[in-house]
Amino acid sequence: MAKRATKQEKRREQILQGAAKVFSKKGYHASTVEEIAKELGLTKASIYYYVRDKSELLYQLYRRAMDALLESQKEIMARPDPPDQKLRAIIEEYVRIAGDAHTMYSVVILREHHALPPRQRKEIIALRDEYEHNVRRCIEEGVAQGIFMPTDVKMAAYVVLGALNWIPNWYNPRGALSKEEIGRIFAHHLVRGLLKTPGEA
Amino acid sequence: MAKRATKQEKRREQILQGAAKVFSKKGYHASTVEEIAKELGLTKASIYYYVRDKSELLYQLYRRAMDALLESQKEIMARPDPPDQKLRAIIEEYVRIAGDAHTMYSVVILREHHALPPRQRKEIIALRDEYEHNVRRCIEEGVAQGIFMPTDVKMAAYVVLGALNWIPNWYNPRGALSKEEIGRIFAHHLVRGLLKTPGEA
Repeated sequence: MAKRATKQEKRREQILQGAAKVFSKKGYHASTVEEIAKELGLTKASIYYYVRDKSELLYQLYRRAMDALLESQKEIMARPDPPDQKLRAIIEEYVRIAGDAHTMYSVVILREHHALPPRQRKEIIALRDEYEHNVRRCIEEGVAQGIFMPTDVKMAAYVVLGALNWIPNWYNPRGALSKEEIGRIFAHHLVRGLLKTPGEA
Repeated sequence: MAKRATKQEKRREQILQGAAKVFSKKGYHASTVEEIAKELGLTKASIYYYVRDKSELLYQLYRRAMDALLESQKEIMARPDPPDQKLRAIIEEYVRIAGDAHTMYSVVILREHHALPPRQRKEIIALRDEYEHNVRRCIEEGVAQGIFMPTDVKMAAYVVLGALNWIPNWYNPRGALSKEEIGRIFAHHLVRGLLKTPGEA
């Protein structure tokens, strides 16, 4: 039984990767389950064994993306580090996770939340809100501790989140810079833009 | 004749605003020309008098957005100001223009470029590339003049462009801050993140 579960898990993973690839190439609306099956060399029926419909593929992609981001963020928030260091780590981790799952992100974060059924959309938006809330909290702590300059925390968080959320729009896994290098550059400029004494950035 | 041209211009403007409103509420794919007509209290036929199909509405929204952004950017680039000041002005102008045409942007910049016919998509992408190129040039000048710290100019530009391009995702014209205030906060953090000596920011 355990072996079968693993095999099913692998197949599910493979289907999600294939769906992400097709969605990000053609756009969600223009893609069909048939094309995803073709991309993977599977039958349509074998995909419907794992998911109810195309929107469930989208939902599962969203869900996994948000779970990975939130898990890494929670771990960083729990560290005893100063807020600027935590924010730097959150930014670097975001880029690492987004870079690991590029086709997933390029479809997921940007374009298609209208296409989710209401209940799933609500769930995904709640997860996103939690992520955004933690970024704000990190900046708030920094301002309270005099590490970051006084600012409108909501807007400052949108500067950071916007820069990050846009990455899938241009990121190329075969580009000149690794995702670790990109993460460091983004963390450097974004945190430096907030610091009271940027000599430390 | 002049009077008729003006009246037609007004009607065209009204149709584009209505289309942007419906697109940004329902998503481009789920919207129909019929709903746009209903939103405006017009007949479908009177919309087809102005545009060939739904994708032409999308194209015209894109085109106007990019024209407005590029016009303002070119004017700023031609100023004799130092690059940090120019970049600040570019950011503030972006927010002002995006804020003026919110529903337009929320549909236009983010989600639907797959939906454009190939030739129009190419044209819009060329305009976007020009805009991005100018932001990079501004940062390059700043680095060359020792005002900005040495950095990967392409990545530094993506930090700025991402933060800006994401604004339509959260911007609320009835929010607590005016678009001028938002523009100043964004310009402040984004330019400060690049400066060698951020005391000046």
